[in-house]
Order: sequence, then structure tokens, then C-alpha cells
Amino acid sequence: MDTERFLEILNRTLSEKRYFHSLMVSKAAEELAKRYGGDVQRAAFAGLVHDIAKEMKPEAQLQTMQKYSILLDDVERVTPKLWHAIAGYALLKYEYGVTDEMVLDAVRWHTTGRKGMPVLSKIVYLADCISEDRDFPGVEEVRAAAERSLDDGYLEMLNRSIEGLLHFGALLHMGTVEARNELLLTRRDVSAAT
Amino acid sequence: MDTERFLEILNRTLSEKRYFHSLMVSKAAEELAKRYGGDVQRAAFAGLVHDIAKEMKPEAQLQTMQKYSILLDDVERVTPKLWHAIAGYALLKYEYGVTDEMVLDAVRWHTTGRKGMPVLSKIVYLADCISEDRDFPGVEEVRAAAERSLDDGYLEMLNRSIEGLLHFGALLHMGTVEARNELLLTRRDVSAAT
Repeated sequence: MDTERFLEILNRTLSEKRYFHSLMVSKAAEELAKRYGGDVQRAAFAGLVHDIAKEMKPEAQLQTMQKYSILLDDVERVTPKLWHAIAGYALLKYEYGVTDEMVLDAVRWHTTGRKGMPVLSKIVYLADCISEDRDFPGVEEVRAAAERSLDDGYLEMLNRSIEGLLHFGALLHMGTVEARNELLLTRRDVSAAT
Repeated sequence: MDTERFLEILNRTLSEKRYFHSLMVSKAAEELAKRYGGDVQRAAFAGLVHDIAKEMKPEAQLQTMQKYSILLDDVERVTPKLWHAIAGYALLKYEYGVTDEMVLDAVRWHTTGRKGMPVLSKIVYLADCISEDRDFPGVEEVRAAAERSLDDGYLEMLNRSIEGLLHFGALLHMGTVEARNELLLTRRDVSAAT
């Protein structure tokens, strides 16, 4: 993983604030990987590059996805906020030659989550939410949950994400809902909660 | 539709409170059908019988579904509260000889909703929530939305249902989330909300 090369690319293509965020997510992902048995180097790298396409214009993100024949579902098609993760995946894979499928998966799903997320992808999803530069209402509760376990943190953030989207009348990505259901289904107390 | 026959069956198999609820849902469904161009007779009948399996024991509901080889998804399998709608569908279709697929669909989906709900099924779903005997917090907001349009009422109730399930840490049925997304996607302001 050619970190130096991507530091240069990110420094050149992202705003100062987003570049700093990328460094902080990389750090948070590294810490989560150490704590929860993820691959530390891959976590740091995936965290670093997760927003590589975030400051492209939506039209350019869409063109990138179309260029590489990536199919969007009904929700993704009309939700530009979801495009940077998918376009970032495509950029890394097809234009920057990243071949590590675990890293690519983590970038692809860092905004919505999905059923069956590998540990590394959960780590990057969560690191993006609790990195030091984040200060949204409730971030301390997510950090506290992430202290308890990776899945506790992941579930807390999935819940807050769904709540927020409901509050704003926004579409819910099926991956987010399925990821939350999957976590609840693996817990022993699920029947008590339903 | 043999209403007299089912009044007798419901009176015999349901508690007084549930029997009254069934009459009230029938009335509410009839009113919604008149207002929104649904089939009034079918709406009244489907509303009447929607909870026909509600007071069976969960084990009996499960046996009924298994007897008629009804496949449950991951969420339905562990959520006994969802079983009465599916068992009710099976009872009506296979044991009471109801052949009207619109009525059967309305009973089958009255608890969760689903993508692509026919008007009659939306009416019964909504009637079950806003019938005169209902008094949960927020019911007046759902009634007000149902005054505006059938889809406004349906969406308001889908939102409240998802919020409630999140609050209690319960699983979300995919049909409920897909139904909500579908409604939002058909609205012109969807891109502004996402």
C-alpha cells in the first residue's frame, strides 16, 4: 500500500479540512484495528483513502461510476450523497490500481454499511463516524459504544444514521437496514426486543 | 363476501375488544375506500377479517404457516408479532375458502406494508392504524395525514412504525422500509430530501 503516493494525491485533490479528516479517519481505523483484531496497515490505508472521491462534482462521480459500468440501486441513483463512496471505489480500483479487495470493499460501503460487512469494512465505517474531528450530536455515545465492541459501535451508528434519515424524510439505503437487522439477529436478546 | 359468516366466526374466536377493533377497522376501511376510490365492499370485508388469526397462540400461527408451506424471511421468522397477518392470510385462503386475492393481499400485508401495495391493501393498513378505537401517541397526526391523501396517511404511519421499532431496538421489516422508499421516490421533492 503506497501511502506516500496517496498522501500526495489527497493533499492535491482535497480541501485542507477533508485532508485532515482523512488523516484522522486513518488514525481512528488504525486504533480500531489494533483493538479489534483487524489488519492495522490495511485499516489505516482504507481510512486514509475512503473519501478520495468526496470532492469531485456529483456529475463527475456519476460519470466515473458509469464509465466502469457500476449499477446503482433505486436509492443510490437519486442520492448524490452516496456517490462518493462508490466513485471512490471505482477510482481506486480502475484508475489508481488498488487491487486489495478488502480495502476496496471498505471504501465502497463506508457510507451505508451493508449485510455481511467484513471486519475491515466495519472498522472504516465506524472510524469515519468517530474520528477526532467529528463532533455531531451523539458522537460521544457512538464512541462509548465503539469502546465496548466493534459491533456495538457499528450498531449504534447504524441506528443513528437511520434515525437521522427518518428525521429528514430521506430515503433509507437497504444495506443500512439489512446491516442493522443482521446485527440484531446475531444477538441473543433479539426475540426479547421484537 | 359472506360477511355474516365471518361476523359469527370472529365473534366466536376473538375477545370482545378485538372483535370491536375488527368492526372499527372495517368501518374505517370503508370510509377510506369511499374517499380514495377503493372498492368499498372489499375494503369493509378485508378490514373486518384482518385480525382473524390475531388471538391464535404463536405456535398455532406458526403451524398454520408451515402447513401451507409459507416461507418466512429472516425478520418474520423471529418476530411473532408479524405472524398473525400471514397466518390470517393462510386461514382465509386455505381454510375459509376466500378467493379474492385483493382481500387476501390486504390481510397478508396489513402489519408491515410492502413495496407495490395495491390501493385496497394500503387502505386496510391505514384503517388498522386510525380506526376509532386507536389512541396511541401520534394517532391524530396519522389521521390528519390520512385526511390529506391515502399516500400521506400511509407514509406517516410507515414513518412512525419505523421510528417506534428503532426506539425499541426491534428488527425492521424490509417491506416497511421499501414501501416508505417507494413512496418517497414517487414524490417530486425526493432529491431535495436526500
